[in-house]
Amino acid sequence: MRILVLGGDGFCGWPAALHLSQAGHEVVIVDNLSRRRIDEELGTESLTPIRTPQERIAAWQEVTGRALGFRDLDLAQDYEGFLALLRELRPDALVHFAEQRAAPYSMKSPAHKRYTVDNNVNATHNVLAAIVESGLDVHVVHLGTMGVYGYGTAGMRIPEGYLDVKAHAEDADGTRTGELIDQTILYPSNPGSVYHMTKVLDQHLFAFYAKNDRLRITDLHQGIIWGTHTQETELDERLVNRFDYDGDYGTVLNRFLMQAAVGYPLTVHGTGGQTRAFIHIRDMVRCIRIAIDNPPAAGDRVKIFNQLTETHRVRDLAALVAEISGARVETVPNPRQESAENDLFAANETFLDLGLEPTTLSAGLLTEVEETARRWAHRADLEKIPATSLWNDRTRPGVPKSVSP
Amino acid sequence: MRILVLGGDGFCGWPAALHLSQAGHEVVIVDNLSRRRIDEELGTESLTPIRTPQERIAAWQEVTGRALGFRDLDLAQDYEGFLALLRELRPDALVHFAEQRAAPYSMKSPAHKRYTVDNNVNATHNVLAAIVESGLDVHVVHLGTMGVYGYGTAGMRIPEGYLDVKAHAEDADGTRTGELIDQTILYPSNPGSVYHMTKVLDQHLFAFYAKNDRLRITDLHQGIIWGTHTQETELDERLVNRFDYDGDYGTVLNRFLMQAAVGYPLTVHGTGGQTRAFIHIRDMVRCIRIAIDNPPAAGDRVKIFNQLTETHRVRDLAALVAEISGARVETVPNPRQESAENDLFAANETFLDLGLEPTTLSAGLLTEVEETARRWAHRADLEKIPATSLWNDRTRPGVPKSVSP
Ligand SMILES: NC(=O)c1ccc[n+]([C@@H]2O[C@H](COP(=O)([O-])OP(=O)(O)OC[C@H]3O[C@@H](n4cnc5c(N)ncnc54)[C@H](O)[C@@H]3O)[C@@H](O)[C@H]2O)c1
Ligand SMILES: NC(=O)c1ccc[n+]([C@@H]2O[C@H](COP(=O)([O-])OP(=O)(O)OC[C@H]3O[C@@H](n4cnc5c(N)ncnc54)[C@H](O)[C@@H]3O)[C@@H](O)[C@H]2O)c1
Repeated sequence: MRILVLGGDGFCGWPAALHLSQAGHEVVIVDNLSRRRIDEELGTESLTPIRTPQERIAAWQEVTGRALGFRDLDLAQDYEGFLALLRELRPDALVHFAEQRAAPYSMKSPAHKRYTVDNNVNATHNVLAAIVESGLDVHVVHLGTMGVYGYGTAGMRIPEGYLDVKAHAEDADGTRTGELIDQTILYPSNPGSVYHMTKVLDQHLFAFYAKNDRLRITDLHQGIIWGTHTQETELDERLVNRFDYDGDYGTVLNRFLMQAAVGYPLTVHGTGGQTRAFIHIRDMVRCIRIAIDNPPAAGDRVKIFNQLTETHRVRDLAALVAEISGARVETVPNPRQESAENDLFAANETFLDLGLEPTTLSAGLLTEVEETARRWAHRADLEKIPATSLWNDRTRPGVPKSVSP
Repeated sequence: MRILVLGGDGFCGWPAALHLSQAGHEVVIVDNLSRRRIDEELGTESLTPIRTPQERIAAWQEVTGRALGFRDLDLAQDYEGFLALLRELRPDALVHFAEQRAAPYSMKSPAHKRYTVDNNVNATHNVLAAIVESGLDVHVVHLGTMGVYGYGTAGMRIPEGYLDVKAHAEDADGTRTGELIDQTILYPSNPGSVYHMTKVLDQHLFAFYAKNDRLRITDLHQGIIWGTHTQETELDERLVNRFDYDGDYGTVLNRFLMQAAVGYPLTVHGTGGQTRAFIHIRDMVRCIRIAIDNPPAAGDRVKIFNQLTETHRVRDLAALVAEISGARVETVPNPRQESAENDLFAANETFLDLGLEPTTLSAGLLTEVEETARRWAHRADLEKIPATSLWNDRTRPGVPKSVSP
C-alpha cells in the first residue's frame, strides 16, 4: 500500500513510519517540523539526539534499503499543496499524527490556546476536505486520545467510542408514547484541556465526513505512550526517536523514568490519584498497522478503537519507579484543573481480538527506558522539568519544594 | 448595561442591536462586513435596500436620539484588536451572532467549507480566550441552531440542551457492579451540514470554557427566523433589515413568501417532509433581551435555551403560502443530504416561563412579509433563487423544471 504519515517526524509518527516501511508499504512522511520549532521556542530539546529528517531518512535507506518520502508541508495552512500531493501520490491510506499534542502547551497562554485550536482543527478539516475534493478513496487513520472520554472516569467502563442510549418517544407536549427508541451516540466527551478539546472537535469533523461523504475513517483513542525505542529505531543510532521530558511535552511515565535517571525527585501532581491509560511505543506502532489492515467500509460510521493496554494511578507508577530506581517521590501542586482522584476502566477488545499481544509494564522494560534516559542524561536541562503551564488562575506551577529557589 | 453585538450588521444582529439600544442599553456593534462581501461574491443582494452601517447608525441616532457604536473588526483574525476593545469598553455582556450562517454556502465548494470552519471556530474561540485574558466577567450569549440536535428528529422530544443518562457502573472486566451512575450530558449532536457542524464545535468550546474558566455562557439553539421587520427597524426606512431570498442565504419560509410575491413557483426540496423549527424575528429580539436579563452564574454549566416557537413540515408551509397567495408549489430535487421525512418535537419552556409570548404563524403576518417582498420585487434577481450548492456528488440542484432553460 501507499501510505502518507502526516506528522511523521514526531514521537509517534517517526517509529510508525519506519514500522510501516519495514512491513513493505510505500511510505511518505508529511510534516512541517513545527514540533522542532516549538522545542526552540521553549528552549528545550529531545533528550535523545534526533537527526534531521533528511539524515534519518538517508540512514533508513542505508540500513534497510527502503526508501521513505518526505514533504515539508503545513497541513493547516497549505490546503492546495496537500491536495496536489494527494493527486500526485494517490495513497491508499494515511495516518494523521499531525497536531499540537501537549495539553500543558495548549494551556500556556492565550496565544498557545489559539494556535492549538487553529492548527489542529484546520489540519484535520483540510485533510478531510482535500480527500473529498480529490475523489480518492483514502482510509484515514487518526490519532485521538483517551482524554476525550469524560464521564467514564466516574466508574463506567468506557466502551470503544460509542454508547447505546434508549429513550422513550414523546409527543409535542412531552407525554410519553409507547415506543422506545434505540440510538447509538458518540460517547459523551469531557475534555480536560484545550488540546483534548481539539480531539473532541476532530471527532465531530470525522462523524460528519463519514456520514455526508462516505469517507472511511478510523479514530484511535490512544493512551499515554511510554518507552522510546522500537525494533526499527534501534537498527541504527541515527534512527533514534524523540524523548521529551520537559514540563510541557514530557508525558508522565517517561518523565518519572528520566527524573529517576538524572536524580531529580519524581514530581507527582496533587495527590497522584489520577488514573491514566498507557501503551508502550512498540504496541503503538503495531496498532497502527492493525488499524490500516482493518479499514471500515465506505458508508460505515467512524471506526473507533481504544488504543491502550493498561491503566494505572499516577502515584502507583511513581512508587514503582521509585522502587526500581531508588528515586524519591515529591508531591507538587497540580497545575491542571482536574479531579484529584478518578477511576478509569476502558474496553480494548478490538485490538486484542485483532491479535495485539500487549507489552505491559514490567521492571525490565522500565529499566530499559531509564537506561536510555541515563545514557543521555548529560543532555538534560533540569530547569525544563517543572510543569509551569497553568490551566487557570486558580492552579499553581508544579515546582518541587526541594528544587525551587 | 454595556453590550457588544458581534455580527450586529447581519439579519439577526441589526434588529437585536436596535432592540437592546431601545431598551436603554449602551450598544456597540462589532462586524467585519463579511456578509456584505459574500453578497458581492455571489452576485446577490438583500431584497430590501439596506444602508451602510454608518447611515443606519446615523439614522438611529436621528430618530431615537440613541447612540450606537460600530467597530469594523474580524473576530476570527484580529484577536489583539478584540482584546483591546474588551479592555477599552469593559462590556457586561456580548451577543455573538458573528459566524458564517448559511448551510448551503458552507457546502458550496471545498473553499467554502474551509472558510466556514476556520471563520466560525476561530471567531468563537477568540471571543472566549480574549474574555479569559481580559479577566472581565462578560456574559456571552451565543446564537446556536436547532440543527445541532440529531436524534431528537427520530421522535424524541428535544430537551433544552442536555440529556440525563443513567448507566450501570462496571469494573475492569465489564462486570456490572450494583451502582447506577447518573450523568447529564450535552444532547447528542448529528449536524446536517458543515455550517451546522461548526455550531456543534462551538458547543464543545463553550462547555470547556464554562468548566475550566468559569465563563458565564448562554447558548440559544435557534430555529429558522421568518419575517424581516421589528418595531425598531420600522421606525425609519433607513433602518430596514436584510431580506435574503437566494439559494444560499434565503431561509425556507421567507423564500416561499418572496417567491409568491414575484410569481415564482414555491420550490419544495424533495418530498417537503422535513420538519423545521421556526421563530418570528420580533420574538428573536425579545429572546435575546430575556437571555441577557437571565444570565447563568460563574461556575454554572452553559445555559441552553431552545429559541423556537413552533415547528412545521416544509410542504405544509408551502401549501399555506400557496393558499393565501395563489402561488404554485413545485417539487425540485433536494440538494441536501438528509432524511426525506422527519418529526421534530422540541421543548421551549424556558423562554415561555420567562415571559415570551409567541408570535405564531398567522395569515396576517405571512401577508405582511409577502407585502414587503412585493414592495421590493423589482430588486429581485430570479436567477439567484434556485438552491445550487450540493451536499455531495449524490445530490442534485434544486432547480424548478418550469424555470430551467
Ligand atoms: N505521545 C503520546 O503519549 C500521545 C498520546 C495520545 C495521543 N497522541 C496523539 O498522537 C499524535 C502524535 O503525537 P506525538 O507524541 O508523536 O506528537 P509530536 O508533537 O511528537 O508529533 C506531531 C508531529 O506533527 C507535526 N505537525 C503538527 N502540526 C502540523 C501541521 N499543521 N502540518 C504538518 N505537520 C504538523 C509536528 O511537526 C510533529 O512532528 C498526536 O495527534 C497526539 O495527540 C499522542
Ligand atoms: N437567520 C436564521 O434563520 C438563523 C437561524 C438559526 C441560527 N442563526 C444564527 O444567528 C446568527 C446570526 O445569523 P444571521 O441570519 O443574522 O446571519 P448574517 O450572515 O446575516 O449575520 C452574521 C453577521 O456576522 C458578521 N460576521 C461573520 N463573521 C465575522 C467575523 N469573523 N468577524 C466579525 N463579524 C463577522 C457578518 O458580516 C454578518 O453581518 C448566526 O450565528 C446564525 O448561525 C440564524
